[in-house]
Amino acid sequence: MNPMFTRIIPAMHAFQNSGSILIGLQKRRWHWLWIVLLTTQLMVSAQSVSPPQSAETVAEAFIRRALVDRKGYSWLKELSEIGPRLSGSENSFRAIEWARARMESLGFDRVWLQPVMVPRWERGERETTIAYTGDSPGGIPLSVLALGGSVGTPPEGVQAPVIQINSFEELKRRAAEVAGKIVFFNFRMDAGKVYTFAGYGEAVRYRVYGAIEAAKLGAVGMVMRSITTRYDDVPHTGVMFYADTIPRIPAAALGWQSANRLEQLLNEHPDVQLQLKLSCRTLPDTLSYNVIGEIRGHERPDEIIVVGGHFDSWDVGHGAHDDGAGCIQALEAAELFLRLNIRPRRTIRCVFFINEENGMRGARVYARYVEQEGEFHYAAIESDRGAFTPRGFSVTADSVLIAAMQAWIPILKKAGIEWIRQGGSGADVSRIPNCPLKFGFVPDSQRYFDVHHSANDVFEAVHPRELELGSAAMAILTYLLSETDLPVKRPVSTH
Amino acid sequence: MNPMFTRIIPAMHAFQNSGSILIGLQKRRWHWLWIVLLTTQLMVSAQSVSPPQSAETVAEAFIRRALVDRKGYSWLKELSEIGPRLSGSENSFRAIEWARARMESLGFDRVWLQPVMVPRWERGERETTIAYTGDSPGGIPLSVLALGGSVGTPPEGVQAPVIQINSFEELKRRAAEVAGKIVFFNFRMDAGKVYTFAGYGEAVRYRVYGAIEAAKLGAVGMVMRSITTRYDDVPHTGVMFYADTIPRIPAAALGWQSANRLEQLLNEHPDVQLQLKLSCRTLPDTLSYNVIGEIRGHERPDEIIVVGGHFDSWDVGHGAHDDGAGCIQALEAAELFLRLNIRPRRTIRCVFFINEENGMRGARVYARYVEQEGEFHYAAIESDRGAFTPRGFSVTADSVLIAAMQAWIPILKKAGIEWIRQGGSGADVSRIPNCPLKFGFVPDSQRYFDVHHSANDVFEAVHPRELELGSAAMAILTYLLSETDLPVKRPVSTH
Repeated sequence: MNPMFTRIIPAMHAFQNSGSILIGLQKRRWHWLWIVLLTTQLMVSAQSVSPPQSAETVAEAFIRRALVDRKGYSWLKELSEIGPRLSGSENSFRAIEWARARMESLGFDRVWLQPVMVPRWERGERETTIAYTGDSPGGIPLSVLALGGSVGTPPEGVQAPVIQINSFEELKRRAAEVAGKIVFFNFRMDAGKVYTFAGYGEAVRYRVYGAIEAAKLGAVGMVMRSITTRYDDVPHTGVMFYADTIPRIPAAALGWQSANRLEQLLNEHPDVQLQLKLSCRTLPDTLSYNVIGEIRGHERPDEIIVVGGHFDSWDVGHGAHDDGAGCIQALEAAELFLRLNIRPRRTIRCVFFINEENGMRGARVYARYVEQEGEFHYAAIESDRGAFTPRGFSVTADSVLIAAMQAWIPILKKAGIEWIRQGGSGADVSRIPNCPLKFGFVPDSQRYFDVHHSANDVFEAVHPRELELGSAAMAILTYLLSETDLPVKRPVSTH
Repeated sequence: MNPMFTRIIPAMHAFQNSGSILIGLQKRRWHWLWIVLLTTQLMVSAQSVSPPQSAETVAEAFIRRALVDRKGYSWLKELSEIGPRLSGSENSFRAIEWARARMESLGFDRVWLQPVMVPRWERGERETTIAYTGDSPGGIPLSVLALGGSVGTPPEGVQAPVIQINSFEELKRRAAEVAGKIVFFNFRMDAGKVYTFAGYGEAVRYRVYGAIEAAKLGAVGMVMRSITTRYDDVPHTGVMFYADTIPRIPAAALGWQSANRLEQLLNEHPDVQLQLKLSCRTLPDTLSYNVIGEIRGHERPDEIIVVGGHFDSWDVGHGAHDDGAGCIQALEAAELFLRLNIRPRRTIRCVFFINEENGMRGARVYARYVEQEGEFHYAAIESDRGAFTPRGFSVTADSVLIAAMQAWIPILKKAGIEWIRQGGSGADVSRIPNCPLKFGFVPDSQRYFDVHHSANDVFEAVHPRELELGSAAMAILTYLLSETDLPVKRPVSTH
C-alpha cells in the first residue's frame, strides 16, 4: 500500500469520533451533519497528523491517471474488437472470457463467473423490407432491423397493406382498419427535450408494446420508425414483448430516412404494400455468466459497494456506449484504487451483469445471490447511459442521505459532476435487495440516441476523455462511499 | 409580434416599479436585490395581469425551436461548404457575402459590413519536413503545417541538425548548443487537466514565442509538437510571433505521431537532420469586413447587447468549431427572437469579427467604432470555445452583477448552463470599451483540442444538438439581459 494513503484513514476516524463527541448531540440524528463537516473539512484535521492528503487529492489523482493513461479506453478497444455481445452469442462468451482474464490480470482479490441461464435470440441471415406500389413493381427496399425477440416470417415473407399510426390513441380510434395489415408506428422521438432519455421514454412504448397492441386488432406485422436523434438511415433495434394470449407478429424498426420514404409513399399511394422478411428466431435458453471482480475492504469487508454495467449488448455495432463503456468505467473505477495503491475500507465489487437488454436475468441472479448469502450492499453504482462527459449522479436513496452527500459536490465537480439528486439508478443495480444507496451515472445525453441499439454504436463513437472522466467520476464517488460513513440503516442479517 | 409575448414586458415593468416602491429603500443600492426577486418570482405577479408567460416559458421555447428546427446547424453546413476562412483569403470574402445575405434574409433590422484592413498570410503550395539519418538516405517524411505568420524557406529548404527542447527552461540551459540548428519544441500538452484550455494555455507559448526564443540563440528553424488531445498525425497550426530585432526563422507544427517519430529518431540518431520546406508568405494588408446584423430594441434601443464570434479561421478544415459554430450560435441567439416574434427591449447586435486568429483587427476596429460613436454596450457575449454541450458562462463584470445573475441559473440550467462565474469573455468582445458585462460561453472542453486549428475541424465534427443547445443558452442569456435591469453604471456619453 502506498504510504501516501495509509495515513488518511485513521485520521478520518479520529475526526469522526471527535466530531461526535464535540457536537455532543444524539449521534444518529446528527450523523448527517458531521458527514457534511467531515467531507468538506476533512483534512484540516487530518493534516495535523499526516502529510497533506485529502479526498480532493485522491480525486485529482484518479482524474489525472484516468485522463493520461487512457487505460479504460484501451480496454474498450480490446472489448469492441470482439464485436457485439448479445446474450448467449458466441461473441458474448469470448467477451466474458476476455473480462475474466482482464480482471485477473489487473490484480483483483477475487474474480469469478456467476452462472446465469439466458434467453437466446438470433437475427439470422435474411432481413429485408420492401415497399411495393403500382409504380414500382420491383419494389423499394427499406433499411430495416428486426426488433429483439421478434418472431421471423415464413421464408416468402409477410406481405400486406400498410396502415400508418402515429400513436396508441390513433390505433384505438382506427381499430377497425387494422386487421390484415402491417401497422407502421410512425411516432417521432421528440427532439425538443434537452434530456434525450425523456424523449426516448415516450417513444419506447411503441417498440416494446407495439406488436401486442397491433396484433390484438388483427395486424399481421409491425414496423416502426427508429427511436433516434440522428436522421440517417441506420435502424435502431431493442427489446419488444409479446403477450401469451395474443398472436406473435413479426416486428422491425426502419431507419429514419426509410420511415420518411414510407410515409411519403403512403401519401402518394395509400395502397402501398410492405413485404417483410425476417429470419430471426428464439433458441432454447443457454448458460452464461455475470463476471465479477472484487477488491476486499480492509476495515469493513462485509459492506459491499458494487460498480457495474451490463455486459451484453444488441447484435449490431460494437455495443460500445451500450454498455461496453459502462462496464469499462465500472472496471476502471475499481482498478484506479489498485493503480494508485489505495486499499478501500469497504469491499468494492465490479459486476458485469449479463442479459440486461432482453431478460434482466443477470440482475435477477445477482439479486438472488445477495439475498441468499445475506450480503449487505452498502451502495451500488451503474453506468448505462453512454460514456459521455459527466454531469451528475441520480440516486435512489433516503433524502437524508442525499442531503448529506451534497457536501461531496465540490470534490465530484473536479470530474464534471454538478449534482447528486433523487432518481433512478440502473436497471441491474436497482434490483439489489436492501441496498440503501443505488446510483446511476448520468453523463451528457445529447449524442446517446445517435448510436443506441444500432450499427452506429461502435468504439469510434466513444471519446477517450469523456469515457475516462466517467471512470474517474465513478472512482471518486466509490472512494467517498468507501471512506466515509453515511447514516445508512444496515438490515439485520438473517444468517 | 406574437401576442403571446406582447404582454410580458408591461407586466415586468409594472412589477419592477411596484417592487421599487414596496421595498421602499434607496433605489440604486437595492436594484440588484429586486433583480433577484424579479427573475425568480417574475411571473407570479405577471400572471395576474397576463396569460401564463415567463422567462422560463421563453427559455423553453428557445430550446425547443433550436433543437427541433436545427436551423443554425443548416447554416453552419452552408458556411462550412465554402471552406476555411483565413483573413484576406478568397473564401473569407465569399463567407462574408454569405453572412450578409443570410442576415438580410433572416429579417434583421439593419445589416452592414464594417471595413477592416487585415493582414494576409498564405500557406502556398509546398510544405514538407523530411528527417534524414544515415540509415535512410531517402529521408523520412513527417506530417507538418507551417505556423500562421511564419516566413517561408528558400525553395531548396532549410536543412540543419535538430536539437530537441522540452521547455523554455531547458532552452536556456542549453543555449550554447542551439546555433545553426532547428529547434524541436517537444512540449506535450498536459492531458491530465480536465479543462483542456488549461493545458493549452501552458503549451501555446512554445507556438507563439518559440521561434523568437530559438532565433535569439541562433537557431535556423523551429518545429514543435502539435498542441492536441488527439494522438493522430494531423498537425495543428496557430499564430506565432516574430520580434523586430530577432531573425525571422521558419516555424511549423508536426503531427503528434510525427513528433513521436522524430523523438524516436533522435534517440537512435542524435545527428538526425531536418529539412524544412515552407512556401508560406505574408502579402500586403487587404480590405475585409466585420459583418453586423442588428435587431433594434423597442424600449432602450441605445443599449446594445452584442452576441458574437470570430468569422475568420485558420486555413485548414472548415473552421467549423473555431469559430464558424460560434458565429452561427451568435446569429441564431439573435434570430431566435425573430423566429419567436419577440421584440427585445434592448438592441441585439450580432457581430462576426474578422481576423481574431492573426491580428485582432476586427475587434480593434469595432472597439474604435464604439468609442467614436459613443455607443453604450450594455453587455456582450462571445462563443469561441467550440460548439459542445453547454456548461457555463464566464463573465468579466463587477461581482455585484455576477451575484445578481445567480438568480438566472435555474432558467439557464434548462439549456445545460450550470454556472455564471467571474472569468475571461472572448478575445473580440473583451476589447469593447465601457461594457460592464462581457461573457464567454463555456461549453464542455473535452473534444475541442482534437480539432482546433487543424484539418480535423470540419462540419462533421460538430454535433447538431450540442450546437443548438449553445444557441439556445446564448439566446436565453440575451433575453434575460435584454428584459431585466441589472444595476450597471452607464458611462456619461461624451457625444
